Amino acid sequence: MVAFSDRIKTLQPSAIREILKFTAYPDVISFAGGNPAPEAFPVTEVKEIMNDIMENDPITALQYSVSEGYTPLRDWIKDDLAKKGILKWNEDDVIITAGAQQVMEMTAKVLCNEGETIICEEPSFIGSLNSFRSYNSKLVGVPMDDEGIDANKLEQALKDNPRTAFIYLIPNFQNPTGRTMSLERRKQVLELAYKYKTHIIEDNPYGDLRFSGEDVPSIRSMDKEGRVIYAGTFSKTVAPGLRVGFMCAEKSLIAKATVALQVSTVHTSILSQMIVHRYVTKYDYNEHLEKIRGIYGKKCDLMLNNLKLKMPQSITFTEPDGGLFIWGTLPDGDMDYFVKKVIDQKVAIVTGKAFLVDERKPTLSFRLNYSTPTDEQILKGVDILAEVAKTIYKA
Amino acid sequence: MVAFSDRIKTLQPSAIREILKFTAYPDVISFAGGNPAPEAFPVTEVKEIMNDIMENDPITALQYSVSEGYTPLRDWIKDDLAKKGILKWNEDDVIITAGAQQVMEMTAKVLCNEGETIICEEPSFIGSLNSFRSYNSKLVGVPMDDEGIDANKLEQALKDNPRTAFIYLIPNFQNPTGRTMSLERRKQVLELAYKYKTHIIEDNPYGDLRFSGEDVPSIRSMDKEGRVIYAGTFSKTVAPGLRVGFMCAEKSLIAKATVALQVSTVHTSILSQMIVHRYVTKYDYNEHLEKIRGIYGKKCDLMLNNLKLKMPQSITFTEPDGGLFIWGTLPDGDMDYFVKKVIDQKVAIVTGKAFLVDERKPTLSFRLNYSTPTDEQILKGVDILAEVAKTIYKA
Repeated sequence: MVAFSDRIKTLQPSAIREILKFTAYPDVISFAGGNPAPEAFPVTEVKEIMNDIMENDPITALQYSVSEGYTPLRDWIKDDLAKKGILKWNEDDVIITAGAQQVMEMTAKVLCNEGETIICEEPSFIGSLNSFRSYNSKLVGVPMDDEGIDANKLEQALKDNPRTAFIYLIPNFQNPTGRTMSLERRKQVLELAYKYKTHIIEDNPYGDLRFSGEDVPSIRSMDKEGRVIYAGTFSKTVAPGLRVGFMCAEKSLIAKATVALQVSTVHTSILSQMIVHRYVTKYDYNEHLEKIRGIYGKKCDLMLNNLKLKMPQSITFTEPDGGLFIWGTLPDGDMDYFVKKVIDQKVAIVTGKAFLVDERKPTLSFRLNYSTPTDEQILKGVDILAEVAKTIYKA
Repeated sequence: MVAFSDRIKTLQPSAIREILKFTAYPDVISFAGGNPAPEAFPVTEVKEIMNDIMENDPITALQYSVSEGYTPLRDWIKDDLAKKGILKWNEDDVIITAGAQQVMEMTAKVLCNEGETIICEEPSFIGSLNSFRSYNSKLVGVPMDDEGIDANKLEQALKDNPRTAFIYLIPNFQNPTGRTMSLERRKQVLELAYKYKTHIIEDNPYGDLRFSGEDVPSIRSMDKEGRVIYAGTFSKTVAPGLRVGFMCAEKSLIAKATVALQVSTVHTSILSQMIVHRYVTKYDYNEHLEKIRGIYGKKCDLMLNNLKLKMPQSITFTEPDGGLFIWGTLPDGDMDYFVKKVIDQKVAIVTGKAFLVDERKPTLSFRLNYSTPTDEQILKGVDILAEVAKTIYKA
């Protein structure tokens, strides 16, 4: 028996990643993943870029590089964030990471002692929650409404937990609920971070995937005290297999994050960084974003319209303006039973429990993904969901 | 002022990485790095491989993948390690990481509570020591002789530190000393790990770079209790920019490491893994290894012969059978003064202090790298070293 560290001994693999093993069977329709649609990948362009790199700059792509990230890509990201008001030139900096997930892991490492508190929306993204758990933090979940995290309950949680390292938020098209935090709520949460002298991680993996409604200013763009740590990624906009994300924060935080990254991965795959840099600068990146917004908007509509048409009215669904997920909620009954029945019919969905701080709490919700399945799979999968639902709930 | 966590607040960037910034000036001769020789990179082959991947399997390269690593590469590594007796099929497993550095970081995370002890050779590789420091471990250095870590002093350290999470060793062509641990010493250390019920990390980044002498069996190949964690990498044999390494250990340890990797980088760049897999299977990898051994053996000879010819006899040097480094030791005097004088003449070398557990301890040693400079730079740099040395030490 190996004596594992306290921080890791009770940590389990992500429940979603376990479900995804089941979805590897070809006859299973998966609404369980969070993968970008394969047709959204710029395959031809990436091939051209690789040729260009190996023709003109192969040694840079293959040799050791600096921990902060590939300078041309860092500069592009800084420019882009400055335009959006997210980066202030004299105060802030950027480091390039292996996806936004590494930002969560490094921020917990850099800011949170074991036993200290991290507050999150509940439900929230399990990958981030597990990152925080891996540092033996005390996770405190705060309920949400349609405008995002409940500000009163957040303040109570901050009062109850004076050693809160940071508040973790996904303001745009949240995973798993698909909800977007209102401007008013963003301002309230930022004021609370000031008042209780804590930090916020603003995780924005889906921000570029808005297919309806108007952009809401990012929390970091309103931050006057350098309290917000911003996490971005090219996983949903270029390709997740490359593992390129980034962290933008006040300079002293980026300096410590750089040390944390140096002792872990040394630097993010330089080839991946060069591919992303060339893609966003040498091709029409905005046109590409328009295209994938079109793909996801269409898939979301298809799933949502069919859910409304076919599912019992008592089962409700969020209506996201972007991102990858719809959140369903049963009126009553046994969510585990419902999810199991659906999976028996070879449609994979994720139980809402997977996104809770305490997985033993009761929940009536489940998560549906529309980006990975084909249109045919969406239609067929919703039909199966509806058949199962009608055996349990009234139309 | 940001309130950083206890584990990270005193951690500094690697001193070597700071020196490397100085070596970016074109007129500086750098013996300070540890980069593979650019002429050792298989540029043409990697270009062909990228075309093949983007032609035949682009979605695999761009989509999310499993945390354990790209299955064909994992299988190749397992086969290779099994042939060398390092992996036992029923007991052990492999996970693919972003270089061997990530193995150090994950192992500390998984095995070592804050305040618990990690024992290392002294001097040792600063990148690994900083990884261990980043978990607020108590680092204990044990001196080495020509056969490796001193077994008696190691046993004393184990007695003094009953909560030792693991012993960190680089048995082949150690960084920074270039020394190889004898078979007898390997057996003694393994017996001590059994006796004191602790683990060993056997870090073997240079094992495939032996250019003289006979291979010594790896510690893990003699391990009957699953106490050794083996770290390997393609950074020195294929290309470091790709960030592909691996960890081989007993199954329950790999399972926990998989969770740790999942919450950090999710998975290692799948494109990088596919490139490495195709390179080691579709090309003559052994011939490539022969070629780079030839390059490094020649460079080592060149540096060592010129050091012997030109430097004062009182300054001694290790004579490595492989790897990337020579370790020089002054007879007496002020090593900092010597290193500073050398750097003033635009030759970058690394003070031995950078490799100590306690950097305030006195040392008379310094590290020289022969893999990165050209032959001309080796000749000129040694001439400059000798000029400086002769102003201080007798011939």
